[in-house]
Amino acid sequence: MKRIGYFNGVTDELDKMTIPLCDRSVFYGDAVYDAILLLEGKPFTLDMHLDRLYRSCELVGISFDMSRDSLKAEIEKLLKYPCDKEAMLYIQVTRGNAPRKHEFPLDTKPNLIMFISPLTLPNKDKRATLASIEDMRFEFCNIKTTNLMPNVFAAQRATSLGATEALMHRGERVTEAAHSSILMIKDGVVVMPPLDRFILPGITRAIIEELCNKSGIPVETRVFTVSELTEADEIILCSTTKNVIFVYEIDGKSVGGKDQALAKKIQDMFIEKIYTETGVRL
Amino acid sequence: MKRIGYFNGVTDELDKMTIPLCDRSVFYGDAVYDAILLLEGKPFTLDMHLDRLYRSCELVGISFDMSRDSLKAEIEKLLKYPCDKEAMLYIQVTRGNAPRKHEFPLDTKPNLIMFISPLTLPNKDKRATLASIEDMRFEFCNIKTTNLMPNVFAAQRATSLGATEALMHRGERVTEAAHSSILMIKDGVVVMPPLDRFILPGITRAIIEELCNKSGIPVETRVFTVSELTEADEIILCSTTKNVIFVYEIDGKSVGGKDQALAKKIQDMFIEKIYTETGVRL
Repeated sequence: MKRIGYFNGVTDELDKMTIPLCDRSVFYGDAVYDAILLLEGKPFTLDMHLDRLYRSCELVGISFDMSRDSLKAEIEKLLKYPCDKEAMLYIQVTRGNAPRKHEFPLDTKPNLIMFISPLTLPNKDKRATLASIEDMRFEFCNIKTTNLMPNVFAAQRATSLGATEALMHRGERVTEAAHSSILMIKDGVVVMPPLDRFILPGITRAIIEELCNKSGIPVETRVFTVSELTEADEIILCSTTKNVIFVYEIDGKSVGGKDQALAKKIQDMFIEKIYTETGVRL
Repeated sequence: MKRIGYFNGVTDELDKMTIPLCDRSVFYGDAVYDAILLLEGKPFTLDMHLDRLYRSCELVGISFDMSRDSLKAEIEKLLKYPCDKEAMLYIQVTRGNAPRKHEFPLDTKPNLIMFISPLTLPNKDKRATLASIEDMRFEFCNIKTTNLMPNVFAAQRATSLGATEALMHRGERVTEAAHSSILMIKDGVVVMPPLDRFILPGITRAIIEELCNKSGIPVETRVFTVSELTEADEIILCSTTKNVIFVYEIDGKSVGGKDQALAKKIQDMFIEKIYTETGVRL
């Protein structure tokens, strides 16, 4: 199916679309974005993603003054096109067009870019693998910006090594994967890294936390190390484009698989939440 | 004068130009660039900049296979347009167009973006000021990529505080400014930070080093701290768009100005080098 794009109110086939050369995305990566899972054209947890998108704008000082209702109306323009059963809605807000200069004019008007593209969710039984790599990213990892070159390097390296994802670490501390969150289960507790400047507040992670809280599964938020991860009972890899899957290998060594009951419970709750919200059975 | 832009062989008024929405600059800042000083339409040290541009491509794995002669011929297309006495030639090589996915297809064909825009070089007697800010950038600062959001933040903050530039430091270590190199003079020696992953190999810096070597001024390459910088005899702020100027204030406190003879000698040699190469007297 054709991918459909959107730029400031205009929709078209994505591959035919252009944006102004002087958009600050191009020169500075001066933009924030979010990505939403679409199942049979229905967005999953759209509001949580829009909350994060507006927060990203605030954090980088992009004055995106389109109301949430107007933004949803623009999204509707895209959702009118037929799309695959599993797809991703991508939304990017850029600082806007300006003559190239680091400092931006305060009245720069943001541009809105969106598109829908097909997606293949991994099978829920997928045995994910990780390749470890030093996390060389900047200290604004809590903001979903398009300054993603280190993530590109990490993902490319993981793929070239045949791994599902990168395990990024700052020294011994596990941060996250190139485009996923990494959590672990140890002694019946779901352990998540603290949401500091090294960690993106993942929506899938937030939903897992909410589901655990509701069902009495203990959640602990703390820094954990690569060795701890290797010794964990289960390793959760989660994101908008892969939901909740489990890791069975890091750098070629077997890991996880020691608390499959709890792992499965969390995954089932997540899949049920998707069904409740979208009416789609995965 | 109108700014003229270039995209893959086509030139036009810059503000009218567009690039494909799916260029990886847009989604990932997956691009490298360089900027060259033009005086009366003549590029200064073009080859040094092209050396760095090709090296940047190699470092990030962008397969930019246009030969240097062909690239120069493309630059000539732009230089045919009238331009201001002082101007900047900007060149960006992007990974190319691809459906959005962190991992890029290895056969992605790079896009070439260029433009010329007017510039106002600071007066050589300008008394530059710095505002200090923690350096939160990634650990690929040796590569001139468009992942520049932290530089934008730093420049914006410096400007809002009325400073010429940001003094970025990792803890106590001075790295560089938001878009300039920072060097110091102490006891007759020009001190430059080591070219590791935290420092861009500045062309203006390289020329200063070469000129010092030729004229017997000692140069030392080592890490230096914010306190050392504050105590330096002179502080040099240099870049393609400001040449060589001196810093007299950091965070509102007076600094430098204690070896004006050597400072002036370095600046004069630089201005002479510009004259020798371009025939233009600044």
